[in-house]
Amino acid sequence: MRKIILNLAVTLDGYIEGPNGEIDWLETGGGPPEDAAVESHFDKFLATIDTIFYGRISYEKWGEFQPPEGASVAETKLWNGVHSKNKYVFSNSLKKVNGKPEVINSDISTQVQQIKKQPGKDIWLYGGASIITTFMNLGLVDKYLLAVFPVILGEGKPLFSEIRNRVDLTLKSTTPSSGVILLEYDTKR
Amino acid sequence: MRKIILNLAVTLDGYIEGPNGEIDWLETGGGPPEDAAVESHFDKFLATIDTIFYGRISYEKWGEFQPPEGASVAETKLWNGVHSKNKYVFSNSLKKVNGKPEVINSDISTQVQQIKKQPGKDIWLYGGASIITTFMNLGLVDKYLLAVFPVILGEGKPLFSEIRNRVDLTLKSTTPSSGVILLEYDTKR
Repeated sequence: MRKIILNLAVTLDGYIEGPNGEIDWLETGGGPPEDAAVESHFDKFLATIDTIFYGRISYEKWGEFQPPEGASVAETKLWNGVHSKNKYVFSNSLKKVNGKPEVINSDISTQVQQIKKQPGKDIWLYGGASIITTFMNLGLVDKYLLAVFPVILGEGKPLFSEIRNRVDLTLKSTTPSSGVILLEYDTKR
Repeated sequence: MRKIILNLAVTLDGYIEGPNGEIDWLETGGGPPEDAAVESHFDKFLATIDTIFYGRISYEKWGEFQPPEGASVAETKLWNGVHSKNKYVFSNSLKKVNGKPEVINSDISTQVQQIKKQPGKDIWLYGGASIITTFMNLGLVDKYLLAVFPVILGEGKPLFSEIRNRVDLTLKSTTPSSGVILLEYDTKR
């Protein structure tokens, strides 16, 4: 069955954004943003998925994001790759435009299980924090791919928030890359 | 100059204890507690330090801890190693018994800088959470050695709490061991 994969960048103290949405710490890795190893890692990841799950806020911010003119070839390629995927947005309020995107606003667990049973590649749980909490508390996250950046922010939006039950994991791989450590965990079933 | 090293075990979501002091997750690593790689890693660490800094609660709990009868050779050796170090306790209330331990209750920054300037090996900042916060906010932690265990607890005592300023780090090494990932960071100066 298709897996649901949480894949995102996090500070060493577990924040996905600073208190005002800051993500400048993504450049603390010591290498350029297009760092070859991270890029290749992400390219490989994108090839394993064909579907992306967003919360509404994340979708409105990043769901149709286009890199600015003059963006690097790598960045343009990355966003083209992201936008080639099927997208679902979990929201009670989002309105479709021309029938897009697919919106799920009820029976999350049932609907997600149905999507998982469809043939296809794995599914990227994009975020943000609220949908991550919902999915974790429904036991719907199969794999965690975390890029841990070498910074302690002290405050911000935590990755893990209001998690109701302990989750035991299996460490599958660790890949250091320009000061960042990429951690892969599977949920123990 | 001697370095102050924070060395402890933490869950993937950043807790050093569960809400009721639980540390049973230390056995989630997939290997036995005496796992050879972790043990050897810790032995090497102990050889690099000659001094331990405790908060009062941690000292009262672990500062003179003796493993139970029938403990393994490895565990007994570990605690003998710990107890062979010089110990300082940061506390306003702790009373010495027979002149032990050394207690520091004022001018932490000044007194710690004096200890750092003395000849000797590095210093282990043992914890708990309160003294870690104090040391981090005074800019006194030089190195972080974190053993990240493969579990999301959801609640508990956070390692990083009330940190006032962002801390930029340099990733020095990563060592996977039986499902645990050992991370070594230096504070950027």
